[in-house]
Amino acid sequence: MGHMATEARERMIRTTGRLLRQQGYHGTGLNQIVAEAGAPKGSMYFYFPGGKAELAAAAVDRYAGKVTELLLALLAEHGTAAGAVAAYLDRMATGFDERGFADGCTVASAAAEVAPNEPVIGSATKRALVAWTEALAARLVAEGHPGSEAHRLATAAITLIEGAIVMAKGTQSTDPVREVRDTVVALLTPPPRGRRR
Amino acid sequence: MGHMATEARERMIRTTGRLLRQQGYHGTGLNQIVAEAGAPKGSMYFYFPGGKAELAAAAVDRYAGKVTELLLALLAEHGTAAGAVAAYLDRMATGFDERGFADGCTVASAAAEVAPNEPVIGSATKRALVAWTEALAARLVAEGHPGSEAHRLATAAITLIEGAIVMAKGTQSTDPVREVRDTVVALLTPPPRGRRR
Repeated sequence: MGHMATEARERMIRTTGRLLRQQGYHGTGLNQIVAEAGAPKGSMYFYFPGGKAELAAAAVDRYAGKVTELLLALLAEHGTAAGAVAAYLDRMATGFDERGFADGCTVASAAAEVAPNEPVIGSATKRALVAWTEALAARLVAEGHPGSEAHRLATAAITLIEGAIVMAKGTQSTDPVREVRDTVVALLTPPPRGRRR
Repeated sequence: MGHMATEARERMIRTTGRLLRQQGYHGTGLNQIVAEAGAPKGSMYFYFPGGKAELAAAAVDRYAGKVTELLLALLAEHGTAAGAVAAYLDRMATGFDERGFADGCTVASAAAEVAPNEPVIGSATKRALVAWTEALAARLVAEGHPGSEAHRLATAAITLIEGAIVMAKGTQSTDPVREVRDTVVALLTPPPRGRRR
């Protein structure tokens, strides 16, 4: 596959991811994806024989990978799960404040609207949510939490991130994101040494 | 307005709410709403001159009212915010287990997909999320939390509920809902008397 061809495929995946976040699966037509990606007409079924569902699943996987990379970078930078998730929510709030509330989460859009009915998309949203949860859970284990407690806290953090997007878009305000940030910090910050819960 | 006419309007609102939860705003066509509501063609613009956006806003308001009623009933039944939200999440998990993952939250679907671009819908999702948060915050104040702390905890609980829907639909599993339930109970249960945080 030539370099230009690979680029067209990449642009289709990225464009689909953005359109899923902004207007959902059913609101996004194949013609719009091809047009906004600047891809040749007909190339869609060449790269994605499974059609729109396969393209959406690829977009979910791509978005999931980017978020996992960002979470790992924030964990490395801040040193704790609490610090990383707080930083993630700060970035989310800044994004909404600077660019409005049209954007969101490719995975959440796909999960809410279409994952239960399209197995290829449902598998991709599951991979994403499991990967994010496990990235945080591994860090929480390293911070001293037992495994099942680490998993529960990591699930809570990812759930709060996904819910915060709904709250921000639904109220057109970043106030809930900032409140959720404080809750995440309280939830994930380990108790002082020597105090057992 | 005659009784039969009012019933057609009600059926359109309820049908729109269900279709928003199951397939989103853009995935739901006016023809499908009118057909599944068993309403006369042309009646949509008679009852909802603002078209699909006005109908969706009415569906969001209706769903919001039902959830507020349920939250208040669960608060009365269980006596605490922790107990009420845990019971709400138990019902959610049971619903997914028994009926699959197609259903969801009318408010979350509208918020994610269309609220930022349609002011009449954005106002409705905001009213819903504020009403739910305030219902829980009032109870948490009655349980002894200072006002701003009660608001933060109530926001966390509603955010966890909305996020849990994404997690359940995205993983096709109720495991995250049950983990979130445990987190909500830990978060909202007041500390033992005499212990200050």
